[in-house]
Amino acid sequence: MNTRPDTPLLDRVKIPADLKQIEDRDMNQLASELRAEMVDAVSITGGHLGAGLGVVELTLAIHKVFDTPEDRLIFDVGHQCYPHKILTGRRDRIRTLRQEDGLSGFTKRDESEYDPFGAAHSSTSISAGLGMAVAAQIKDRPRNVIAVIGDGAMSAGMAYEALNNAGALDARLIVILNDNDMSIAPPTGAMSAYLARLASGRTYMGFREFGKKLTGYLGKAVDRAITRAVEHARGYVTGGTLFEELGFYHIGPIDGHNFEHLLPVLRNVRDNAQGPVLIHVVTQKGKGYAPAEAASDKYHGVSKFDVITGAQSKAKANAPSYTKVFAEALIREADEDDRIVGVTAAMPSGTGLDLFKDAHPGRCFDVGIAEQHAVTFAAGLATEGMKPFAAIYSTFLQRAYDQVVHDVAIQKLPVRFPIDRAGFVGADGPTHAGSFDVTYLATLPGFVVMAAADEAELKHMVRTAAAYDEGPCSFRYPRGEGVGVELPERGSVLEIGKGRIVRQGGKIALLSLGTRLADCLLAAEDLDAAGLATTVADARFAKPLDTDLIVQLARHHEVLVTVEEGAIGGFGDHVLHFLAHQGLLENGLKVRPLVMPDVFMDQAKPEIMNSRAGLDRKGIVDTVFRALGESGKLTSTQA
Amino acid sequence: MNTRPDTPLLDRVKIPADLKQIEDRDMNQLASELRAEMVDAVSITGGHLGAGLGVVELTLAIHKVFDTPEDRLIFDVGHQCYPHKILTGRRDRIRTLRQEDGLSGFTKRDESEYDPFGAAHSSTSISAGLGMAVAAQIKDRPRNVIAVIGDGAMSAGMAYEALNNAGALDARLIVILNDNDMSIAPPTGAMSAYLARLASGRTYMGFREFGKKLTGYLGKAVDRAITRAVEHARGYVTGGTLFEELGFYHIGPIDGHNFEHLLPVLRNVRDNAQGPVLIHVVTQKGKGYAPAEAASDKYHGVSKFDVITGAQSKAKANAPSYTKVFAEALIREADEDDRIVGVTAAMPSGTGLDLFKDAHPGRCFDVGIAEQHAVTFAAGLATEGMKPFAAIYSTFLQRAYDQVVHDVAIQKLPVRFPIDRAGFVGADGPTHAGSFDVTYLATLPGFVVMAAADEAELKHMVRTAAAYDEGPCSFRYPRGEGVGVELPERGSVLEIGKGRIVRQGGKIALLSLGTRLADCLLAAEDLDAAGLATTVADARFAKPLDTDLIVQLARHHEVLVTVEEGAIGGFGDHVLHFLAHQGLLENGLKVRPLVMPDVFMDQAKPEIMNSRAGLDRKGIVDTVFRALGESGKLTSTQA
Repeated sequence: MNTRPDTPLLDRVKIPADLKQIEDRDMNQLASELRAEMVDAVSITGGHLGAGLGVVELTLAIHKVFDTPEDRLIFDVGHQCYPHKILTGRRDRIRTLRQEDGLSGFTKRDESEYDPFGAAHSSTSISAGLGMAVAAQIKDRPRNVIAVIGDGAMSAGMAYEALNNAGALDARLIVILNDNDMSIAPPTGAMSAYLARLASGRTYMGFREFGKKLTGYLGKAVDRAITRAVEHARGYVTGGTLFEELGFYHIGPIDGHNFEHLLPVLRNVRDNAQGPVLIHVVTQKGKGYAPAEAASDKYHGVSKFDVITGAQSKAKANAPSYTKVFAEALIREADEDDRIVGVTAAMPSGTGLDLFKDAHPGRCFDVGIAEQHAVTFAAGLATEGMKPFAAIYSTFLQRAYDQVVHDVAIQKLPVRFPIDRAGFVGADGPTHAGSFDVTYLATLPGFVVMAAADEAELKHMVRTAAAYDEGPCSFRYPRGEGVGVELPERGSVLEIGKGRIVRQGGKIALLSLGTRLADCLLAAEDLDAAGLATTVADARFAKPLDTDLIVQLARHHEVLVTVEEGAIGGFGDHVLHFLAHQGLLENGLKVRPLVMPDVFMDQAKPEIMNSRAGLDRKGIVDTVFRALGESGKLTSTQA
Repeated sequence: MNTRPDTPLLDRVKIPADLKQIEDRDMNQLASELRAEMVDAVSITGGHLGAGLGVVELTLAIHKVFDTPEDRLIFDVGHQCYPHKILTGRRDRIRTLRQEDGLSGFTKRDESEYDPFGAAHSSTSISAGLGMAVAAQIKDRPRNVIAVIGDGAMSAGMAYEALNNAGALDARLIVILNDNDMSIAPPTGAMSAYLARLASGRTYMGFREFGKKLTGYLGKAVDRAITRAVEHARGYVTGGTLFEELGFYHIGPIDGHNFEHLLPVLRNVRDNAQGPVLIHVVTQKGKGYAPAEAASDKYHGVSKFDVITGAQSKAKANAPSYTKVFAEALIREADEDDRIVGVTAAMPSGTGLDLFKDAHPGRCFDVGIAEQHAVTFAAGLATEGMKPFAAIYSTFLQRAYDQVVHDVAIQKLPVRFPIDRAGFVGADGPTHAGSFDVTYLATLPGFVVMAAADEAELKHMVRTAAAYDEGPCSFRYPRGEGVGVELPERGSVLEIGKGRIVRQGGKIALLSLGTRLADCLLAAEDLDAAGLATTVADARFAKPLDTDLIVQLARHHEVLVTVEEGAIGGFGDHVLHFLAHQGLLENGLKVRPLVMPDVFMDQAKPEIMNSRAGLDRKGIVDTVFRALGESGKLTSTQA
């Protein structure tokens, strides 16, 4: 049991305005208390720890200097916002982070006026901030807009698009580049190397020099060219030429844990900035909590842990994770076929490609947070006869939709898309749910769209994807551990567009795509017990449909329920579409497509979310009874 | 009537290898002939002219120096590829450009081995090229990979993502930045300004200086730092610091119309390049054809024209274009409501926002080719109470899908999406078809998805979108001119989720979304004439559905056909989904959802494409008869 930390200074800060009463010299003490409070909270809830620890001083300094919520503060990605939440009236609920009905693990507009923009996917903050800054200009209502963005997020194209646009406008936008040289994984890419060159190998500017530079800034128009000439002549870089070339006034790098740097810089910018400014702040992920500092991932995402030892409680797994099964299956296939390569967008461990890279080092590419590039890069590899597996979460593949359409699907290039985190994802909430992939992929001509019912099926699909070379394909699987089925040593090649009957009945047919199969089988037991002989089939493919199977189910059953953990417009609706054109809906068949409800559901355990969605055992049974016009019957047999 | 140009040198070049026989000193003559041939071809077909004219010398130089198709040459966007097509065995078909069964207006893998990557959307070439270069490395098969990308395309995030990744790898990739300071519209953004600074205000490097620099490159490891220091000390920029910071060796700017610069530079790079190289080439869009040089748009896209005068033949329009109706309606609404702002991603004239900008100059933002940023920028504007209209073509909105989901839909921000070029687009072919927008938007919770049946409906939808402030909405409309209906002075506010009965029948119901309404009405005449009383309804909304209307149509008709110019998973399938859950498919209703066929259709006139898709008058009638089991009947009544 942890003891709550002692936080006398923090207790005086209910909202950011209270920071005005804290002396600058007491800020270090306040930072310690805030850090302790956050560590304690996350030790109870689990969540993102390292990123928040790295921005404790920065968050305090921003809230002290600026006038939030009138000034707009946007945290890119949002997972570093826990200190911000503690300071902005949500301390009393901070130990509900990421829990059902609790605080979101990200910034969220619904939650607080101090969260002017919700973020969870990376690299959106500069765009959103520029929109706010331009709105302030149009309305002639001056205010500060501050976007805090990590160096990892700077590899994403949209951040560059926003810089490029902001640098050409004169809106007052303050971008704080939080450079901790560490996104979720160590960052890759030339920008990262560039930032590292700026931040290392040369000492930070001394405060006095820094003041001189800032003074120069005040007489910007006149002095800027001269200052730069001088800097170049002296042979060292004090600001980022690259950002300045893009139209930003660039300050830094400065020490993001040092209030003597942070406070005067922010005050100066607040009082003097004209157009876009970029402040390059160097921080340390995991700062101030020894176990995090010592860990290679800086405690990026943690489960509950012991504050003293840092030991995380790991729930004992009953089965290997889907991610691991995928990785091992891919390694196995790559052992046999040297054309197989892996591509990840900054998620080597999340996708399991770190294991693949260990096994096949020259054939794995982490392109950074850059899903668009990842997909077209994979397309380029495919044109040369390689077999790329572009492993991108369902929610992040949205970032590359046009590349999937334009570069892969139209050209029929055999890029394979392993889609992890498909369906409900639990604590990360609606921004990370994998809801739409089947809909947005199955609508594309020539795309093979698969979904794994369990981890053995996933192995089959990895092998099938490796073997299938005629066009693009995807296979989705959920977050978390498998259902515990026996695993073959190696998967089998599935016939494209063929599902399987898992259980033969007569009156009721349940046609599942993906992981709802287990609940379909449980529902079938209930239905059988109620005298309704139930067939259960696993479609395996949302595209191409197994039309023989569907015709058979439609012709020989009274009720057909399709079940999928995805949004409307996907598998079930393709089945309906097919049946309609076959004239198979006209003979009294009662067909019910079950999909996710038409809302963005807040975080909860996935099983609870599936239950609320009516996609679990009970929801399926209820649907069948409603279709039969005998609702209420189940309740009596089950109660 | 134009006379074919005299082209003795060009006649000797059947494939690029033939260029080896042409002396360097004859290249200017060859360029003139190639230019004349292209002008003549496009004068007959219409198409993209200015971009191709600008790269005549560059295309010749690349093909002369490199060994295509073994070396891979990728043209970004692809609309500048006509000279390339003439040189690569397609000269005999060049006068079929963009025609049905003719050559594509873009590069296309199916068409030629000299097109290793199809392009039509911008900014994909560096990613694809890097994939090819890496594949060559893995396979240990050295070859050159050359990506030619315009300066306008450099505003897109994915180009930056690719540079960032390439700069950190050592793959041999040659990026040629074709800087003509002019994409479709004059480019915007800080990068563009930066390139302009590089290319202007300082004379191009003399050739001798350039040679010195390149010699320095050969001893790259040692000399690079020194060279740069010297360059800085001398106070002028010869290469692009920005690109060098991103890990590229940067050469240029050089004159892209001067073979004495192009040939030795390309040969040197070919023979000596190690890692990624960026060659900054300055060209003039429309070069060498006086009418194009003189035009403000440099003849970016033209209809058929007279070669001597440059006069373009304009088909007489029967009705204003949808684009213009949209623009005028938006201006009208913005006259009344100063919160309305427009956002375009480098398509001011294509979207009609150029007119809006003329009317409301401070409220229109062209962010460059940067759809991702455009959408989140609009989301930022919406958080501050502005009413942003983010006008992006259907096909390009795919680029911003995640931003639509994550930044707009999840936050329920009232960003309006006017979606031009929805449905078949004709000559631009499958890469530009607006096929998927209804599917990928209507699957999102809380999204209001509209489609205009005619230009008057479009006016209503503009006003409805301006009035609706509770969440995101979209309204789609096709390329080209309206159907000629009378236009109200101002649109009316439509009730959200309510369609309209256009024609009352009894036995057959046609439920149209969008512009197929006219064909539905014609089909209804045929059906009525065959004794089948036909109701025609315009759904107006794909989401939320007009459930009352749908129930009424389903209950009181024997056949219900939904018609939309979009892919599977969209409106019609939402209707089926709803009917299934209402139990309204069980009473013998014959329902047939008509959508685009499940293929990427090549270019043809939109009416022909709709006919092939079965979405025209005849296709609708045939569907009804097939549903009634009386196929063949129509043929007899209609023949």
